[in-house]
Amino acid sequence: MPNGAQTLIRTLVERGVEVCFANPGTSEMHFVAALDDVPEMRAVLCLFEGVATGAADGYARMTGRPACTLLHLGPGLANGLANLHNARRAGTPIVNIVGDHALHHKPLDAPLESDIDALAGTVSGWVRRTTDAADLKVDVTLAVIAASGSPGAVATLILPADVSWSEPGPSATAIAMVHDSGPGAVSAQAVTAAAKALRSGETAAILLGGAATHEAGLRAASRIAEATGANLLCETFPARLERGGDLPEVERLGYLADFASAQLDGVKHLILAGARSPVTFFAYPGKRGDLVPEGCEARELATGSEDAAAALARLADEVAPGSVASDSATGEVAADAVTPAAVTRAPRPQRPTGSLTAESASQAIGALLPAGAIVVDEANTSGLWLPGATANAPRHDWLTLTGGAIGQGLPVATGAAVACPGRPVVCLEADGSAMYTFQALWTQAREGLDVTTVVFNNSSYAILNLELQQVGASAAGERARQLLDLSRPGLDFVALATGMGVPATRATTAEEFTAQFERALAEPGPHLIDCVVPPIF
Amino acid sequence: MPNGAQTLIRTLVERGVEVCFANPGTSEMHFVAALDDVPEMRAVLCLFEGVATGAADGYARMTGRPACTLLHLGPGLANGLANLHNARRAGTPIVNIVGDHALHHKPLDAPLESDIDALAGTVSGWVRRTTDAADLKVDVTLAVIAASGSPGAVATLILPADVSWSEPGPSATAIAMVHDSGPGAVSAQAVTAAAKALRSGETAAILLGGAATHEAGLRAASRIAEATGANLLCETFPARLERGGDLPEVERLGYLADFASAQLDGVKHLILAGARSPVTFFAYPGKRGDLVPEGCEARELATGSEDAAAALARLADEVAPGSVASDSATGEVAADAVTPAAVTRAPRPQRPTGSLTAESASQAIGALLPAGAIVVDEANTSGLWLPGATANAPRHDWLTLTGGAIGQGLPVATGAAVACPGRPVVCLEADGSAMYTFQALWTQAREGLDVTTVVFNNSSYAILNLELQQVGASAAGERARQLLDLSRPGLDFVALATGMGVPATRATTAEEFTAQFERALAEPGPHLIDCVVPPIF
Repeated sequence: MPNGAQTLIRTLVERGVEVCFANPGTSEMHFVAALDDVPEMRAVLCLFEGVATGAADGYARMTGRPACTLLHLGPGLANGLANLHNARRAGTPIVNIVGDHALHHKPLDAPLESDIDALAGTVSGWVRRTTDAADLKVDVTLAVIAASGSPGAVATLILPADVSWSEPGPSATAIAMVHDSGPGAVSAQAVTAAAKALRSGETAAILLGGAATHEAGLRAASRIAEATGANLLCETFPARLERGGDLPEVERLGYLADFASAQLDGVKHLILAGARSPVTFFAYPGKRGDLVPEGCEARELATGSEDAAAALARLADEVAPGSVASDSATGEVAADAVTPAAVTRAPRPQRPTGSLTAESASQAIGALLPAGAIVVDEANTSGLWLPGATANAPRHDWLTLTGGAIGQGLPVATGAAVACPGRPVVCLEADGSAMYTFQALWTQAREGLDVTTVVFNNSSYAILNLELQQVGASAAGERARQLLDLSRPGLDFVALATGMGVPATRATTAEEFTAQFERALAEPGPHLIDCVVPPIF
Repeated sequence: MPNGAQTLIRTLVERGVEVCFANPGTSEMHFVAALDDVPEMRAVLCLFEGVATGAADGYARMTGRPACTLLHLGPGLANGLANLHNARRAGTPIVNIVGDHALHHKPLDAPLESDIDALAGTVSGWVRRTTDAADLKVDVTLAVIAASGSPGAVATLILPADVSWSEPGPSATAIAMVHDSGPGAVSAQAVTAAAKALRSGETAAILLGGAATHEAGLRAASRIAEATGANLLCETFPARLERGGDLPEVERLGYLADFASAQLDGVKHLILAGARSPVTFFAYPGKRGDLVPEGCEARELATGSEDAAAALARLADEVAPGSVASDSATGEVAADAVTPAAVTRAPRPQRPTGSLTAESASQAIGALLPAGAIVVDEANTSGLWLPGATANAPRHDWLTLTGGAIGQGLPVATGAAVACPGRPVVCLEADGSAMYTFQALWTQAREGLDVTTVVFNNSSYAILNLELQQVGASAAGERARQLLDLSRPGLDFVALATGMGVPATRATTAEEFTAQFERALAEPGPHLIDCVVPPIF
């Protein structure tokens, strides 16, 4: 008779959850012991919970299917919350398993007792505590379904230790074989209204978000833009933007309020396809937070829970009936042959020479980015030139910092590499952000993951130097500036990576960086480059 | 006219809060800018919020006064929660300042928006969001008072960015000059009842906790134990246990349920002085969680909010009127001269030779621990021999993992060193726990803190090997054991420390460790020793 933990893992596997990013403790020892009974579940050990949750996010962004986590009580969940916050903003499916004290132990208020439900509620679309092992099969099934909605969600299952170690009796509840009903249907009314706006003769823009940043949505949106002259934009921080190769290019809405306002200036109709109405990341004294221009009407073609790509396709058929989408199933470029969307791509950047800067490093990345790369971008200020430099690279995916909680890049890269063992992962990291969840490198070494990490080491929280100006705190003195400085002492990322088993090099010229980046891509397994650049602010 | 941030910092300083452990973001930039206007506030930059909160815990454990933190929105608070959990369990005063979006920005649900109040509620004794800069002076005052109660608490002040940047109008509320009323009075009834139990002729034990583990409580408890034959114990994980020199020795209640049960076996009267009734850390199949033996009566002499040391002194006067406490103000050993408590101390351990093990390393630490040391103990399984080896060392403080959320040691050591610049700090760390908040080393290097960190590097989560047996999951196979293994790849703590500017060495023999430990203590500033030992489980 299997115990609760064995039942749990077996049910997860039956529901397609085959990877567990884990940092277990005592209350999760039966789960750990049960791994030998269900070899189909791959357990990946992480040295910190923020690595586990971020890896689960990266895994699901690439597979579309949830991984599970295994976290130790309230503090373990707390350590993983920041990256669950990012996952929530990305609409990522995750089955988040949090061990708890045995039910009879909770009233004793032992030292590790805390309010797991309150913590879980802040990031989860679904939370349940299983109190009887007989309910485990149902609860796990419901968790997987809750995670796998449209959009995906964090589904947190709280697992008391005694439920894990008990042998389930017969289930009282019949398992409802409920499946996710898929995204909401396309609204014909919304399509008609969007078409009318596009035909109004007034300036229009389409803002893509969620699943509309994948191939089908991009191609449909491109047909619309070609036919109507609408501007094509996507949300500032897409969970997964498909790019490069023959895909239509889409400009991301700027992070800086002034830049985003300029992109939307004069727009009278803003059509939201899977994206939310745009707002600034932060408030600034005397500036509007709502980025929709005065006099502009923002209308939803499809919400985040509807099928934005299908809605775009319907809208394209309405406003551009003559155009043909490329065959996304085969990846062939049918559209390019018959529509004006066939873009003559600018050449990729040359290999840079001379000074190593954020700009020249970006050129090297653009010059060398391999086909099929998964790019995880937490480069922050140093990433300014990356979109331009890589726009003409071969087909790749671009994963961004969806929720603004830094420390996401290295873990997401780790999970993406677990998800896609045949594809090169390129992780572009800011130094300050890298130090949040640096422990991810150890898991990359342990699992032999093909991740090339570039740390843009500018010895500062450069974005905060900028923000210090933005919020009007411009008269900042020496003590304030010291709080944004990472140069005393400097961080030696070569030593840090080496300490966790990841081969690493330091680049101080563009030539060194280019050579090191090329070599890291050519060799399997993880590598890190300490890319020493001046701050751009 | 000062703005909100300047008013905030000025008020903190006026209330005795003079250190801020910070990891700020955009919404905290006015706080950062205001640091130059209030030079009495010392800001200490941390590379991760868990370092900031743990450092605030260590600082207040040593000074008795709160430091403040500065955290960035919900995700920043989330990253700091695990060590706030430990601080809550320690009864540590902390003024926890969490920046938030401007009030008018919150309804926009920008990417970093999350439920800060829910997160804060899980660790805080007091939570307030200031919504008008005119209220800041009052709210900050109340936060400091709420933090500084008996016992101390985490008081969380949520600070919207626009409150920070506004200039406060006249305060609507008069500032109530409320001061902490101090710990609750001693209950004469509880003293009488405890005295009666001690005189019953049945086996009795006194369990010390909270402030009763400081000198006055220890000396009073020792008088009682000498006079009545009661066993003297203290809680398993004291926030700050004063030890060594001429202080009475007190045995800590064991972490392992079987060990703790043996310590309490046969006790008929358990007198709780500032300690809670003892329970096991975790539940184990078929074992009781309540450690109070069947037939034993646990009675509170003083709760955690009462003055346990005063209650013990009253009880000592009742049951041992002839004994005299030593003069704790001068540190002279008056009591030892006149009471049987004058213990002939065993000699300190010799410097060890031969194999480097947790036991021989502990001997070296016991042999060399300097007078006035602050020992931060997160050595976990490798710490088994530490209490014995250091019992006869010169006077020192021992700070432990109060809440069980690992990743506490390096941050607490950092804060303790900021609090006590003249005292050597010795941080005894397990390898797995060290990797949670390793970023603390950078702050130690930056601030030139005199911390000697010993990482017991046994390449495993050794305690989980033990717990895997304890919970009955004894048939664990290879895949389970791999999840507790840290040897693939091994962690090179010398490289990791060097990467953050902390000089480090590796010891593989007892002689090497002893020489390195002695040298690290002799040199100012931070040092780390990668102490390679076999796991004890």
